[in-house]
Amino acid sequence: MPHADKNILFIMCDQLRFDYLSCAGHPRLKTPTIDALAARGVRFTRAYVQSPVCGPSRMSYYTGRYMRSHGSNWNNFPLRIGEPTLGQHLKALGVRNVLVGKTHMTADDEGMERLGIPKGSVIGVEAAQCGFEPYERDDGLHPSRPGAARPAYDAYLETNGFPARNPWEDRANSGIGPDGEKQNGWLLAHADKEANIPEEHSETPYMTRRAMDFIREAKEDGRPWCLHLSYIKPHWPYIAPAPYHDMFSEDDVQPAIRSDLERQNPHPVYGAFMDMRVSRNFAREEVRRRVIPAYMGLIRQIDDQLAVLFKFLDDEGLTDKTMIVFTSDHGDYLGDHWLGEKDLFHEVSVKVPLIVVDPSPEADATRGTTCDALVEAIDLAPTFIEHFGGTVPRHIVEGRSLKPLLRGQTPLDWRPVAISEYDYSMLDSRRTLGRKPDECRLFMVFDGRFKYVHAPGFRPMLWDLQTDPHEYRDLGDDPEHEAVRARLKEHLLAWALTDHNRITMPDATIETYGPARQLRGGILIGYWDEAEVAEARKAYGIE
Amino acid sequence: MPHADKNILFIMCDQLRFDYLSCAGHPRLKTPTIDALAARGVRFTRAYVQSPVCGPSRMSYYTGRYMRSHGSNWNNFPLRIGEPTLGQHLKALGVRNVLVGKTHMTADDEGMERLGIPKGSVIGVEAAQCGFEPYERDDGLHPSRPGAARPAYDAYLETNGFPARNPWEDRANSGIGPDGEKQNGWLLAHADKEANIPEEHSETPYMTRRAMDFIREAKEDGRPWCLHLSYIKPHWPYIAPAPYHDMFSEDDVQPAIRSDLERQNPHPVYGAFMDMRVSRNFAREEVRRRVIPAYMGLIRQIDDQLAVLFKFLDDEGLTDKTMIVFTSDHGDYLGDHWLGEKDLFHEVSVKVPLIVVDPSPEADATRGTTCDALVEAIDLAPTFIEHFGGTVPRHIVEGRSLKPLLRGQTPLDWRPVAISEYDYSMLDSRRTLGRKPDECRLFMVFDGRFKYVHAPGFRPMLWDLQTDPHEYRDLGDDPEHEAVRARLKEHLLAWALTDHNRITMPDATIETYGPARQLRGGILIGYWDEAEVAEARKAYGIE
Repeated sequence: MPHADKNILFIMCDQLRFDYLSCAGHPRLKTPTIDALAARGVRFTRAYVQSPVCGPSRMSYYTGRYMRSHGSNWNNFPLRIGEPTLGQHLKALGVRNVLVGKTHMTADDEGMERLGIPKGSVIGVEAAQCGFEPYERDDGLHPSRPGAARPAYDAYLETNGFPARNPWEDRANSGIGPDGEKQNGWLLAHADKEANIPEEHSETPYMTRRAMDFIREAKEDGRPWCLHLSYIKPHWPYIAPAPYHDMFSEDDVQPAIRSDLERQNPHPVYGAFMDMRVSRNFAREEVRRRVIPAYMGLIRQIDDQLAVLFKFLDDEGLTDKTMIVFTSDHGDYLGDHWLGEKDLFHEVSVKVPLIVVDPSPEADATRGTTCDALVEAIDLAPTFIEHFGGTVPRHIVEGRSLKPLLRGQTPLDWRPVAISEYDYSMLDSRRTLGRKPDECRLFMVFDGRFKYVHAPGFRPMLWDLQTDPHEYRDLGDDPEHEAVRARLKEHLLAWALTDHNRITMPDATIETYGPARQLRGGILIGYWDEAEVAEARKAYGIE
Repeated sequence: MPHADKNILFIMCDQLRFDYLSCAGHPRLKTPTIDALAARGVRFTRAYVQSPVCGPSRMSYYTGRYMRSHGSNWNNFPLRIGEPTLGQHLKALGVRNVLVGKTHMTADDEGMERLGIPKGSVIGVEAAQCGFEPYERDDGLHPSRPGAARPAYDAYLETNGFPARNPWEDRANSGIGPDGEKQNGWLLAHADKEANIPEEHSETPYMTRRAMDFIREAKEDGRPWCLHLSYIKPHWPYIAPAPYHDMFSEDDVQPAIRSDLERQNPHPVYGAFMDMRVSRNFAREEVRRRVIPAYMGLIRQIDDQLAVLFKFLDDEGLTDKTMIVFTSDHGDYLGDHWLGEKDLFHEVSVKVPLIVVDPSPEADATRGTTCDALVEAIDLAPTFIEHFGGTVPRHIVEGRSLKPLLRGQTPLDWRPVAISEYDYSMLDSRRTLGRKPDECRLFMVFDGRFKYVHAPGFRPMLWDLQTDPHEYRDLGDDPEHEAVRARLKEHLLAWALTDHNRITMPDATIETYGPARQLRGGILIGYWDEAEVAEARKAYGIE
């Protein structure tokens, strides 16, 4: 049995910055496999996630809907039962939507119980796994916590000769100290250590092999697939196996993108974020120099593993049959802007790498090009639906298919602004700012030049990326930019007021409605007398 | 077995204007029973529905959520599966949420099928009936349409000696002409006819008896109940049984609330609405004079039936145990403002009667008073939850409990504006205005004086009810009211950006989260070294 004619390999990294690829200009980190991928497709230079943190960003990727629509505002906020997913749309097209790796999905157990959906049933698994068929689910964070579910990767390590109390933590995510002693891999100070595991057994090669396992097995099944290979790196714990742990050194660390200007009277929310432990640590040069080489090593490892994977696709004859997408769920501040982690809207956090290789001949003209249209993470779901010949249900899916862009056309009505959201209610900053859980929302509106951040309860933030590409100067209260802020705020209002919960009623059904259908249905609204009805019946051609 | 100690009788009329009650000042229509109810409780003078049309208004009543949140934007737009309902909240409190009459609920069949929920199961019925236990469901519109489900009322009429092809249409909603011939009750010209049914068998007394049937049966069951007695009158077909059909005459018809000013260069959407058949007909004085006496008769009939019902409650010893709520799902233009039906935001359409009688002694001080706080239909669900001792899940239910207002306290942070929405995609006006289905949203923001209507794609509308209580002068493009519009638009933005889909994560759970819990869970974010962790463990009191 041959492979299906059309498949999608949807590769996601976790916490990979847009600029840590050589094709995106990194001067020291070489990523030849990813660069070659870009040479075969389109690299989007302005791709924005819908929330700069794992959970909500991914729920947007997997539903094609903004965070305000899917409602899963932060990591481990369950995705409400009934929320339509990409998997559901693909299933209707006869396509398997399969997971290898991380989704950060939390099931809505309460909702499932209320609706009597058994967790173990096919429907229950689909609902609990965000529309994925979980070939292997692994969210990549498995601390030693009583009662925590263990990943299959733990058993793999044990079977392969690496038994431990917690193989994920003690082996793959611990370091080896100078005297061979185990070092806590969660700690930034140990980021320069070699991981306590041979490279081939570390997480990235393991997941790559699991993806290949699935692809081999899928051949038997015959149905087309969308495989989400969702790597859990270069996300922390920042610790890389040899030889990646010392492939890069302090000399490869680029200067931090930060300015003293940013610490002078910062926006209160930004200020609170700068004051978090992770930010205070990353503000130290010592920390950056210790961590960033490991971060680069983990990326280089992914690049090398992708070479293995792409070779496999070639060998299987799948390269011409497979759309390949490479992206990330958000970036990583790594000390830029005096911040660690993600959570805010500077480019290094909210912008992601996005490369799409469409194997169809219609996309030949754009191979090796870049596209700077404003693209959102939610655009992938509709792209995938279209790729498999489906019609995008526009009353549900809020993103737009990238298909025209992949074929060199930018629709005249392409979105004027990219939107991203953040809910900081789960951050320590909520307390330091004295906010209630429902008062912690931030909204980014970016038009390609000006980035406006609406922060209810506070003044807005504003950066002009044309005159200030590093986003140092917050113009949020600059009187000269009043009109810019007002304009972007209008976009925000328009966006906020668009339908996003009217998901049971397609536009096409609405379009068939009207007085003729009403009259046919026997419901007479506002008719005076028999003559008027007769006249209307005649006008509408009703016998 | 005695009746449960606490119950709610939630009475709703359909299309009853706020001002067609004598307690609300109608000069000719006497409604002594409803007036007496008001004398026992609080009459709210500024109660606004969340959408001035049956379906979405009711979905807001039954969920406690705005239309943008429940997404059922118009009649027969299915309520998405999993959308939390009042019934679900009451069930958790051991309370039956029971229906006699109309809900206008359309089940999300597709969603139910996708999730494998059998329609006939207890859970399936609950989901399909918007959280109600349907003691008797009757939406009150049963035209002769092949394959249409017939109401139990049809069988009732047949059993009681009124057989017909369509008993609902041919008997209860047809008129008797001068020569005894049947007249089409859908037509406004026949509104002065006597309905083709003896009064005792018409819909309002029938539904009243069904409510009493339920209450009698519920005594056996013993659980407390919230009974939604949902009359389908005075909604059209405007046809009343004797003696109500000629209880009122043209002399009782009040002058239309309308001004030629309104037809001069009207707002495009308002203009399109004025141009609909029902509006053009109601703009004729002849039509008003024919229809309004029947409308008044139908209301008077409800008042008389409520007298029967309240006597029954007395006899059953339920009066002191039952909170009674009387309201409507929206008003009726009846030719005011050159409009028929509802659909726009003038007071006669969007404002409803609302009387609440709380039998508890703490409410004694407010009996017979009026309250002019800005109240929304979504406030009832939380009021009911609190009445039964529940805690309102504020991340789901968007209304606010009226309990403090019923006890004479207006919270300092009571809402500054009332919000209502309308989706005109299903009106003929969508076509005449050249709008796509997702471009037909209207939003009202009313602060008690100024009523602002945001109309994407058009200029806004604005009325100053202080200087122009009849809402004749649209200040939507008046330069002098720029600041007022800007202020109300800010309220709209704030409302639009509030969380409304984060329904799986309660505020209280968010509040327990923080770095201590993270550290306990073994997830170390941003710590530099062992000393820092030890220090933090000490600071958080973790062993």
